[in-house]
Amino acid sequence: MSLQNLISGKELSKIILTKIKDQVTKMVGEKPQLVIVQVGNNPASNKYIQHKLRACEYTGIIGTHLVFPETISQVDLEKQIITLNQEEQVHGIIVQLPLPKQIDEQRINEIISVTKDADGFNPATLGKVVLNTSTIFPATPAGIVKLLEWKNIELAGTNVVIIGRSNIVGKPLANMLINKSATVTVCNTKTKNLQEIAAKANILVSAAGSAKLITPKFVNENMTIIDVGANFVDGKYCGDVDFESVQPLVKYITPVPGGVGPMTIACLLENTLTSFKNQQIATKN
Amino acid sequence: MSLQNLISGKELSKIILTKIKDQVTKMVGEKPQLVIVQVGNNPASNKYIQHKLRACEYTGIIGTHLVFPETISQVDLEKQIITLNQEEQVHGIIVQLPLPKQIDEQRINEIISVTKDADGFNPATLGKVVLNTSTIFPATPAGIVKLLEWKNIELAGTNVVIIGRSNIVGKPLANMLINKSATVTVCNTKTKNLQEIAAKANILVSAAGSAKLITPKFVNENMTIIDVGANFVDGKYCGDVDFESVQPLVKYITPVPGGVGPMTIACLLENTLTSFKNQQIATKN
Repeated sequence: MSLQNLISGKELSKIILTKIKDQVTKMVGEKPQLVIVQVGNNPASNKYIQHKLRACEYTGIIGTHLVFPETISQVDLEKQIITLNQEEQVHGIIVQLPLPKQIDEQRINEIISVTKDADGFNPATLGKVVLNTSTIFPATPAGIVKLLEWKNIELAGTNVVIIGRSNIVGKPLANMLINKSATVTVCNTKTKNLQEIAAKANILVSAAGSAKLITPKFVNENMTIIDVGANFVDGKYCGDVDFESVQPLVKYITPVPGGVGPMTIACLLENTLTSFKNQQIATKN
Repeated sequence: MSLQNLISGKELSKIILTKIKDQVTKMVGEKPQLVIVQVGNNPASNKYIQHKLRACEYTGIIGTHLVFPETISQVDLEKQIITLNQEEQVHGIIVQLPLPKQIDEQRINEIISVTKDADGFNPATLGKVVLNTSTIFPATPAGIVKLLEWKNIELAGTNVVIIGRSNIVGKPLANMLINKSATVTVCNTKTKNLQEIAAKANILVSAAGSAKLITPKFVNENMTIIDVGANFVDGKYCGDVDFESVQPLVKYITPVPGGVGPMTIACLLENTLTSFKNQQIATKN
């Protein structure tokens, strides 16, 4: 089986991280700092945070891991974030999800300063993404756009179908691609004739979280597939695409793992670097 | 020609304004106040502002019209808005567009307090609209959703095609309908096979600003058409739809004038009332 149509997020993320490293290495004086806030001890979160810290280490961005007890109150967590907002040496803040039940996640996202919003989850960041005036973009959609642009896949006038409408992937990605003049269709679980709609796409983004959802009937030979699924089936990590049957039938496809996942981390670090630069410009003015 | 398939924005806006009037009339003490900021003396703006003030008068909302000279600087206009943000008796602020060249419109939208953002153009308001956590919605999209819901037109699982991707209509409307579980496609001037895409919609929203764009080939007999166009042809005000030929062929259609236009004003006043209520709740807490 030829795998020449793979879009390797592993490869592109390495290129991006190396570019960040080059810039950070040359910095004289202060370096960018990303603070990762964790509440409790979720095993999946531990793993994701380790990946993020390792990427920080590679690039020279200072990665700081703050862990608060599972029982922390809303008020106390907010206070911690407000403190981080005020610390001049902190340039990016992320609060690792999921959060325990007593914490209002939306409120936490609203409190993180727009100038340090490395995840891009603050409503004001998202609004600017919609208006095309933001320099920070939610990391997963940003990674997807970079993968498409890396392969010189035309976006203007292109039919893009996005399956899934989450706040962190489907909706921001749709707005970003609309701003790039794509014709964008956003589908959800209530969509009728999903298969028919998908099969006409030039670019199909599946962020449904449903293993083997995308079968050969959903695709065409000119299609680029971006698989955002992160599913576990029989202990094996896989995307939304029935990869073995679909991969030979399409023009381009991202693998899982090694596709969108590593791009998310690279874009998170790029956001941190951008926030660092924005803050330096703001201080000079 | 039967016109039984018309969706009258004139009628629904009257219902909404009367409901607002009922609420305002019952208020003891402070009444909601909307401040309309105008820069210069654009004749079209004068007319729109008169309509808004008349609606204020009808409902009992205090409508205040502030006019600044065409030559006002960015800094001075910002100062005026910051003052309005701080005035407790002001509950809604809108800055009438267009603004003269020396004014950064985006920056003005960002300065208007989210708590008084009657137009819903602040990025933080827009972000909350995307996240489905806002109580304020950009007025034109809000009016469109109300027209559809008034006629009991199903949104969940429905194919909606939006032509146009402006910051004040296409993009916010797309996000609002995505949140209502519609399958939403956003088209733009680069879209290939626009006619084919449109013809499959259950709901077609045309916000292209192009007279007679929508001809019988764009429609089907089960379609609802929302015409957001505001065009002048031979001195006559018309929408994007070639009304005479299209109206008999579809299930529902909004006329121009008397469709989306009056809804925008009604929703602007509803936003003012909502902001007033939000501020009263905030003051009590």
